[in-house]
Amino acid sequence: MSAKKGLAELGEFGLIEHIQAQAGSAPFLKLGIGDDCSILTVASDEELLTSTDLLIEGVHFDLNWTGFEQLGHKSIAVNISDIAAMGGLPKCLYLAVAVPPTLSVDSLEQFIGGVLAETKRHGAILAGGDTSRSSGPLVISVTVQGTVKKGQAVCRNGAKDSELIFVSGTLGDSALALTQFKQGMSPAPELERKHHCPQARSELGSRLAGRKLASSMIDISDGLIADLGHILAASTAGAVLNLEAIPLSPSFRAACHMQPEIIDLALTGGEDYELLFTVAPDSEPEIDRLATELNLPLTCIGSVEKSGELRIVRKDGSNYQNQQGGFEHFAEH
Amino acid sequence: MSAKKGLAELGEFGLIEHIQAQAGSAPFLKLGIGDDCSILTVASDEELLTSTDLLIEGVHFDLNWTGFEQLGHKSIAVNISDIAAMGGLPKCLYLAVAVPPTLSVDSLEQFIGGVLAETKRHGAILAGGDTSRSSGPLVISVTVQGTVKKGQAVCRNGAKDSELIFVSGTLGDSALALTQFKQGMSPAPELERKHHCPQARSELGSRLAGRKLASSMIDISDGLIADLGHILAASTAGAVLNLEAIPLSPSFRAACHMQPEIIDLALTGGEDYELLFTVAPDSEPEIDRLATELNLPLTCIGSVEKSGELRIVRKDGSNYQNQQGGFEHFAEH
Repeated sequence: MSAKKGLAELGEFGLIEHIQAQAGSAPFLKLGIGDDCSILTVASDEELLTSTDLLIEGVHFDLNWTGFEQLGHKSIAVNISDIAAMGGLPKCLYLAVAVPPTLSVDSLEQFIGGVLAETKRHGAILAGGDTSRSSGPLVISVTVQGTVKKGQAVCRNGAKDSELIFVSGTLGDSALALTQFKQGMSPAPELERKHHCPQARSELGSRLAGRKLASSMIDISDGLIADLGHILAASTAGAVLNLEAIPLSPSFRAACHMQPEIIDLALTGGEDYELLFTVAPDSEPEIDRLATELNLPLTCIGSVEKSGELRIVRKDGSNYQNQQGGFEHFAEH
Repeated sequence: MSAKKGLAELGEFGLIEHIQAQAGSAPFLKLGIGDDCSILTVASDEELLTSTDLLIEGVHFDLNWTGFEQLGHKSIAVNISDIAAMGGLPKCLYLAVAVPPTLSVDSLEQFIGGVLAETKRHGAILAGGDTSRSSGPLVISVTVQGTVKKGQAVCRNGAKDSELIFVSGTLGDSALALTQFKQGMSPAPELERKHHCPQARSELGSRLAGRKLASSMIDISDGLIADLGHILAASTAGAVLNLEAIPLSPSFRAACHMQPEIIDLALTGGEDYELLFTVAPDSEPEIDRLATELNLPLTCIGSVEKSGELRIVRKDGSNYQNQQGGFEHFAEH
């Protein structure tokens, strides 16, 4: 596929063949790209997990500060993050794109490059998709299929009174980077990386499920408070969060030092793609060992309560009230 | 969900809950809408088929002549048609929609109504999805998972020399309806129904696969010539089609009588969602019996040849040359 070739000239089938040639193969995938459907075998001791995401230019991403390879990477990572949140490992990805006529083949190749690299990094396969032109923005739809051992999937509804609430990595970095991009600033590399190249925590999710450590789990896409809210609603429980326990990166801390209200980005900013999960209190040492194994911070940020409320408390015992709720995809930003 | 409520007010989670309440349940679906992923069990004697489609307002549909309930119906039907084309039966559907802020909740409810009705008509379940606002056109992404008995899926690459080429139903009706809509005309009900409410031929596909009758199969979405071309390319074969054998509806025949060049819509128009399949010559009586069982015309329109060409011949033996190739999704129409 030549970079000089226009998309209309290259055509749908040329694009599909280009992707197909790079997609690779896997033992579980009997048939990949190129027929009406993929054919997948699921082992008899496994269950199939499926999630789908739609990403729209101008809503979910902005090409003013997002490179095409990053966009490809992120489109796959955020989708795989949903598999991680159930404790599964990703197997097959399906990519559908609607491309504005103005988009260059070169940009599209970079995007596909990011998609394939991130897919392969997780040992998964691009197994199908759809392509067309778009009458408006660039549209990306990704569907992921993963597997988990039968009965080991971790849902949102298992949180119980007195359990500890843990979160992986650090929070707020992605939202702070986005805020700075919108203000025309260049975020610190640490922040930018979290925004453009989030890491789906599938290894963590899979081990938490395999060792039966997590009673409930979700990935933080809409923001800590909104996503913890989903767990609490599904589990009919409340929680108390310790504001100062929320894990923050050095760059985020530095920004917070100048503007303390930035802490709300760690609570409600979203797009962290870290795992939020609940564990029995006596499992804390095992969680600490897992953090060492994976070289990934796993931080206890609070505990589940019987009451239906979600309270955020400061070290001095006072309640903290954040300024906004979680991310709502229909709201204008 | 009140029709007076705006989408932004209703919010993403309100919309998801509204859909979830109507989605139903099925034994194979352990967990449906409402968590990070669905959980599906696949029987040990079955393989999983998956296909995904992206539908963009202004490219794949036009709201000037398409009702929202029809759009919901069609979005699901065209996706299930891909499962039918492999000989499978649909199980789980995933719907992602990006909604322009101007779209009324009432319209969205009609759309969801069409989606759910068509999904249930096939004994399938809406098992997950995604919702957001759109910065441009209405965007619909549908992914379908179906199953087929192990080893029975019918691919595109099995067509063999001297086999007969069959097609279900009639061709060209949908494309003729679209042409008439674009000209400001009202198509005959028979044509309009084929355009707005195509019937995925999953019962036919499933029986052809189960009885091992079809050696290759595809659904006609891009047009007879383009889709037969996919079978021939995958099977490294050629074919001869008999122009006068192509099955046409009474309304299409009437239009053809006035404008003979309309026949090209049956060859290249696309969106027929009929099944095109190849069978061994001695299977013809079984195909005829199947047509009677299903009360669905199954017409022999030609045969497979060794050569790599696709020829269309008239009754008098002369070659017919159609005016255009199949549908290319990147071309401007």
